[in-house]
Amino acid sequence: MEKETLKVGLLGLGTVGSGVMNILQMNGEQVRSRAGISIVVKKILVRDLKKERAVEVDPSLLTTDAAEILQDPEIDVIIELMGGLAVRQYVEEALRLKKFVITANKDLMATAGAPLLRLARDNGRNIYYEASVGGGIPLIRPLKHSLGANRILRLVGIINGTTNYILTRMDLENMEFADALAEAQARGFAEQDPGNDLEGIDAAYKLCILAGLAFNSQVHFDTVNVEGISNIKQRDILYARELGFTVKLLAIGEEKAEGLALRVHPALVPLTHPLAGVLYENNALYVEGNAVGEVMFYGPGAGAMPTGSSVVADLIDVARNINHQVENGIMETDFLDKKVVPLEELESAFYLRLLAADQPGVFAGLANAFSKEKVSLDMIIQKRSREGEAEIVLVTHPEKEKNFNAALTHIQKFSGIKAIKSVYRVIRK
Amino acid sequence: MEKETLKVGLLGLGTVGSGVMNILQMNGEQVRSRAGISIVVKKILVRDLKKERAVEVDPSLLTTDAAEILQDPEIDVIIELMGGLAVRQYVEEALRLKKFVITANKDLMATAGAPLLRLARDNGRNIYYEASVGGGIPLIRPLKHSLGANRILRLVGIINGTTNYILTRMDLENMEFADALAEAQARGFAEQDPGNDLEGIDAAYKLCILAGLAFNSQVHFDTVNVEGISNIKQRDILYARELGFTVKLLAIGEEKAEGLALRVHPALVPLTHPLAGVLYENNALYVEGNAVGEVMFYGPGAGAMPTGSSVVADLIDVARNINHQVENGIMETDFLDKKVVPLEELESAFYLRLLAADQPGVFAGLANAFSKEKVSLDMIIQKRSREGEAEIVLVTHPEKEKNFNAALTHIQKFSGIKAIKSVYRVIRK
Repeated sequence: MEKETLKVGLLGLGTVGSGVMNILQMNGEQVRSRAGISIVVKKILVRDLKKERAVEVDPSLLTTDAAEILQDPEIDVIIELMGGLAVRQYVEEALRLKKFVITANKDLMATAGAPLLRLARDNGRNIYYEASVGGGIPLIRPLKHSLGANRILRLVGIINGTTNYILTRMDLENMEFADALAEAQARGFAEQDPGNDLEGIDAAYKLCILAGLAFNSQVHFDTVNVEGISNIKQRDILYARELGFTVKLLAIGEEKAEGLALRVHPALVPLTHPLAGVLYENNALYVEGNAVGEVMFYGPGAGAMPTGSSVVADLIDVARNINHQVENGIMETDFLDKKVVPLEELESAFYLRLLAADQPGVFAGLANAFSKEKVSLDMIIQKRSREGEAEIVLVTHPEKEKNFNAALTHIQKFSGIKAIKSVYRVIRK
Repeated sequence: MEKETLKVGLLGLGTVGSGVMNILQMNGEQVRSRAGISIVVKKILVRDLKKERAVEVDPSLLTTDAAEILQDPEIDVIIELMGGLAVRQYVEEALRLKKFVITANKDLMATAGAPLLRLARDNGRNIYYEASVGGGIPLIRPLKHSLGANRILRLVGIINGTTNYILTRMDLENMEFADALAEAQARGFAEQDPGNDLEGIDAAYKLCILAGLAFNSQVHFDTVNVEGISNIKQRDILYARELGFTVKLLAIGEEKAEGLALRVHPALVPLTHPLAGVLYENNALYVEGNAVGEVMFYGPGAGAMPTGSSVVADLIDVARNINHQVENGIMETDFLDKKVVPLEELESAFYLRLLAADQPGVFAGLANAFSKEKVSLDMIIQKRSREGEAEIVLVTHPEKEKNFNAALTHIQKFSGIKAIKSVYRVIRK
């Protein structure tokens, strides 16, 4: 018993909502043909009926009453594009009323994804959330389907466009952090209050979603080690380039014998690594699987049309499922709760920049401190000293973080060391 | 009525077949859980029952009689990994006997994809061919599903690992073509008879498959303009780098108002383009959609395990479809037969290296020849002349190919021009 049209309720008509309406208007015939059914947006929840919209929409579709949409028995699919955690009640109500849910809500899926997916399953429905991470880049679907034959070993993502824009400007145009941030704000790639982006919070939420799916585990935000980019100096980016690296804010998830390792931090990335070529506001996810090896997905991590592209792809999937009477796609509702390994037990290579007195024995002291903690050095730069002060840049081989930290503690006690200016992790592949 | 196990027949146990068996053994539990059903390889067609295999397989599964597999009513899925066009009869027989088909066969899907997909549809079945292009990189599924809301405007692919390996060695290690080819052969990235790879034939077949899907049109091999890399000089790669480019063999498909444009040729790619970072044997597909903007898929384009990863992903999809009684996934059987635009009507920017007599008026003559055909120059390098001969490198702005060719004809007639050494296309984004 196939339906003639699929009726959809939209919660929210902001940036992404306008993008979705735009795509349905622009590519409507193709969407209908792929979906196998006509798709009609029947009602749209907005806060203000009179507001100017970026897209032309029949005013009679708009309502300020969520119940009018959620309780409409003709509506089979709810697309939630309001964001924030307060909409959880709407999503739960929609699922209990046997509606499919599509959402672009990163915060909601990162903090409540597992229970919501279970609720969906218990009601014979599903939640689609391709748009919640990576904007227009296909990430969720490839992890669930295309790489379904793989045990995922590692994810390395550039999944925050604001920080990547800033770091790219700093690197390619020798800008200082504050100037690059101001540029990002002027061009709409950073918010006026950019804290969540700069401090890695946004990337950590997205990592929760991706790592949860990749490692089949509930991933809690507070188990992710998070460090942002606001202390990054242009000088370090210059040294990094001299050594063959660029600096990126990475979100890294790994499954090791001891458990999951989850972190967001800036890192030196080799210029020959495919992530090094991910510039400006673009995002990418690098995935290591035990069968495929390494693959990467690259594209626009935000924006009305890219994110709308992911929402409408989900809508086509839902439509096909409903039309074929398949009530579940592949679901991920049997999340385990895997152990998370503390950062200091992980191995990392480090980049270190310090100022030392230009006097005999200083470098020997440094070298001994590292050697005592079994940290070995991979690269060293020391340029001509100025005013009795030498700037030294070191890159270590990978070693347990606690050993590196112990060496750093020894070094800080030397009278010859004037300041430890910067410490960053380095990824090798 | 759900089955307890899904029985599979494998045609071929070479490189990819061994990879598939390996993955089913290594990740069997995960595959079963994703598929929702146990998957059993019931029979395997081989040429030689006694041959040593790269994977451990129960010898009782092997047979040299295709009919024993194709006519087994218990077998619901045929995985065809023999390659070549002679297996077409097996694929057709399998479809007529209502079996699903999974194939990694690029030649077959490029030359007979459309009729085979129609045959599948007429029998209520489908053909899955993720592994036929790009090895382990998800390409087919993203084009069909994740980007399903987009009208695809342009595909630019690095889809031949042999040529990309050679060009990467030439670029990063200043090697000449012949040495890089020898290295590629020694390391197993080029065959002893590498003609199909070097001349762009392999990439053109893959472009037929990708462009067919992206533009919903039957794409015939003989409508693709093909040029290979065997004439590329290290000297041009050096100049390209000086100008901010690297050289790649690209497969390009575009849909323009006038029709499809399809070509495989070497081209200068800006170093800031994400395709520039695709090194050695890796492959990537850059896709422009009218909603998403630009996305790229990157990874290993060949190899037993990567290609096996794509085959097993298809197998999971088939198993889920069978298990849920859905007989068709999204199909692409209503291919149109769109017009193809001749290359000379397309716009391209060009790189040109020539030797000229070091005498007055030569450059003016050159410039006039271009100007006469409305070709404008974007970049020029002329270094100190040697023995009365000057080497000149030019990059033009985009102009119709026929205009550039006309300018080239004028130039060749000048007495001051001693030789046109190289001509390549340049992509700007």
